[in-house]
Amino acid sequence: MQKDLNEILRAGLEAADPEAAVRRSLELDGDSITSGGESFPARRVFVLSVGKAAGPMAKAAEELLGGRVAGGLVVTKEGYEVPPLRLDALSAAHPEPDEGSVAAARRVTELVGSLGEGDLLLALVSGGASSLLADPAPPVELAEIKELTGALLRSGADIGEINTVRKHVSVLKGGGLVRQAAPARTLALLLSDVVGDEPSSIGSGLTAPDPTTVEEAREVLERYGIEPPQSIGEHLAAAEETPKPGDALFERVTNLVCGGGRQSAERAAERAGELGYRPLLISTSVTGEARGIASVYAAMVREVLETGNPVPSPCALVSGGEATVLVRGDGQGGPNQEFALALALELEGVEGWSAFAADTDGNDGPTDAAGGVVDGTTAGAAREGGVDPRAALAGNESYRALRAAGALLVTGPTGTNVNDLRVALVG
Amino acid sequence: MQKDLNEILRAGLEAADPEAAVRRSLELDGDSITSGGESFPARRVFVLSVGKAAGPMAKAAEELLGGRVAGGLVVTKEGYEVPPLRLDALSAAHPEPDEGSVAAARRVTELVGSLGEGDLLLALVSGGASSLLADPAPPVELAEIKELTGALLRSGADIGEINTVRKHVSVLKGGGLVRQAAPARTLALLLSDVVGDEPSSIGSGLTAPDPTTVEEAREVLERYGIEPPQSIGEHLAAAEETPKPGDALFERVTNLVCGGGRQSAERAAERAGELGYRPLLISTSVTGEARGIASVYAAMVREVLETGNPVPSPCALVSGGEATVLVRGDGQGGPNQEFALALALELEGVEGWSAFAADTDGNDGPTDAAGGVVDGTTAGAAREGGVDPRAALAGNESYRALRAAGALLVTGPTGTNVNDLRVALVG
Repeated sequence: MQKDLNEILRAGLEAADPEAAVRRSLELDGDSITSGGESFPARRVFVLSVGKAAGPMAKAAEELLGGRVAGGLVVTKEGYEVPPLRLDALSAAHPEPDEGSVAAARRVTELVGSLGEGDLLLALVSGGASSLLADPAPPVELAEIKELTGALLRSGADIGEINTVRKHVSVLKGGGLVRQAAPARTLALLLSDVVGDEPSSIGSGLTAPDPTTVEEAREVLERYGIEPPQSIGEHLAAAEETPKPGDALFERVTNLVCGGGRQSAERAAERAGELGYRPLLISTSVTGEARGIASVYAAMVREVLETGNPVPSPCALVSGGEATVLVRGDGQGGPNQEFALALALELEGVEGWSAFAADTDGNDGPTDAAGGVVDGTTAGAAREGGVDPRAALAGNESYRALRAAGALLVTGPTGTNVNDLRVALVG
Repeated sequence: MQKDLNEILRAGLEAADPEAAVRRSLELDGDSITSGGESFPARRVFVLSVGKAAGPMAKAAEELLGGRVAGGLVVTKEGYEVPPLRLDALSAAHPEPDEGSVAAARRVTELVGSLGEGDLLLALVSGGASSLLADPAPPVELAEIKELTGALLRSGADIGEINTVRKHVSVLKGGGLVRQAAPARTLALLLSDVVGDEPSSIGSGLTAPDPTTVEEAREVLERYGIEPPQSIGEHLAAAEETPKPGDALFERVTNLVCGGGRQSAERAAERAGELGYRPLLISTSVTGEARGIASVYAAMVREVLETGNPVPSPCALVSGGEATVLVRGDGQGGPNQEFALALALELEGVEGWSAFAADTDGNDGPTDAAGGVVDGTTAGAAREGGVDPRAALAGNESYRALRAAGALLVTGPTGTNVNDLRVALVG
């Protein structure tokens, strides 16, 4: 089973590989590109790749499109690898924007502003794009955007709320990019790092209709008691709405999620099927406390073993999404390790199952492990290794307990990030 | 969907009805009884019915067996209804035993001690039997048992740990009853109120092999720092082991779970199928924090709506087990109401689903509601009713929020108790 779990994890990660994701989503066919069953003009293609995976995504596009690429730009996070490219590559700061982000946004605005009828903008968007492009709507300045972003990050506002505000103080976000790119057509390939893979949430929705409103942006600031810098307050009082779902603008725009938690979990389930396990894809958007999710998994594994519900064994219980940890102690760990440890404890001594939970970026919480791989012997192995697994769980010390049990899952950096993947094999 | 949910709940409750459970488990056939595919001698049947459902279970047995009943006894909780019966009925205290419990245990010991070869003991066991029969092993006295039970209930020990101790200071528990009844055969019909329906855990396992040991009973007391009364300490130091799994004694004993969480959830799933929903029985033993379980349910409902995983709609996501509430506020509610409110919030505004969660005894937590019935409009209805549902959830005020939304599920006392039942319909 351990070997099968490894293969299933590898398949899930490959489905989220940025280069592969672009490669399987584009096909050059004479003067046009086929993508997602649709056809796009490919006489003059401008490639704009922004985000933490911008380098490998741009590389795949260059290789596929060759001489059709008439221009473009790559913007990624400082220190992130960019393979040799013909396109210009810039870098900027993340998670808080810097002057590089302003320069990058300026270059992007120039690029898309120069496009004409018959051109195609191929936008390759991955996580981090929000910060990498700092495009304050005049008269707002970078310093004020930074002040606002910092206040939002500290306030307890969730990422959806933060992005609602960001979209309404920016030129390019919340669909602004495609407004600038018109009359050119836009094909956007999105590599999703958000649960649910909603295009308007990936990279602040550069290419997607924005369901949020200026009014909602103002409400977020009120809700968290944030007094914005004067220029931002003035801008929000009079801001133009971002383009909304149904806007005619989007007749020229196609958004396609080319990789994300869904593809990763679906491919993991499919690979499990190829290996002889009946796959049950529970959900690709499981959120909530890691221990609660582990309780439900434990109950399902028990039920499979006892009655063959919800699916007969041999089977694979697969889910994606993003778990959280309710911090009770000051131990080291992450949601995937906490899930794995909790599951190992609930099913201690039970034979016939094995499971992993992994953060697909290779780092679960602030640790060098991606997660854990556990079975009915793990809790005992932790004890033999000198760590009481129950006390470790109570103190959020999942890393220590799994390490003692030899149950850490270490992948190193994977080059992608599509949240968590959990697979339990029973049979 | 509301109507379908009602029908599914009713079917789940009927499957756990004590009288019906006995009725469908016994068949009189000339000089023998057939039960669970096995045949038992029915020339002289002694009926012993103990627990909160003892009255209705005994009534069903009397009606089915008529003149074959040669004697017996019914022991139930004070104030609980006992229908007119030919058998003697006693009552005793619950959850802490009293003198009535001692008298009842004495009568039971006399009864089973008088049985001979060829007799059948039909034991009907339901929840509460532990307390209703106080059978201290000499030299232990009732007062000492009460002191011990009180200390255990206050210590934070779980019900499994409490019963491990109880079994080792008792004559009848942990299989002691059938040891006394030999050489008669025993057919035990168990109405389960414990998650997982393990016979050794139902009513302290009067008729089941006991996997726990005297040593473990001593460890429980140590773990919670309980200094037992002297007589109990002395007894535990020298106590005889209870009969263990594999003991030849159990060749004369058949334990059959005639009703419980499993049957209830399975019947609910089956009824959903009859109403046109593809049933997915997630598990009959889901435990853990109510909000975590709600997160997983919400993720599954979203997935069904978006991709038809884990089952295509129209479908029913069914589970049993027993949720807990992590107390953060001092509001009124229970685990089923908390689950329902959390689900309503996570899926606010989402159409095409409806769900209930109910404690099958009709009382969720210390409230007069069994649980809640919710859909995508519930959170908004609570707001219109003057209660902020998110603040209510944070303060464990699920009762108040669901009442404001008109989403309380009120059944009144159901006459049975097989833990929680949760059903979400999507389609």
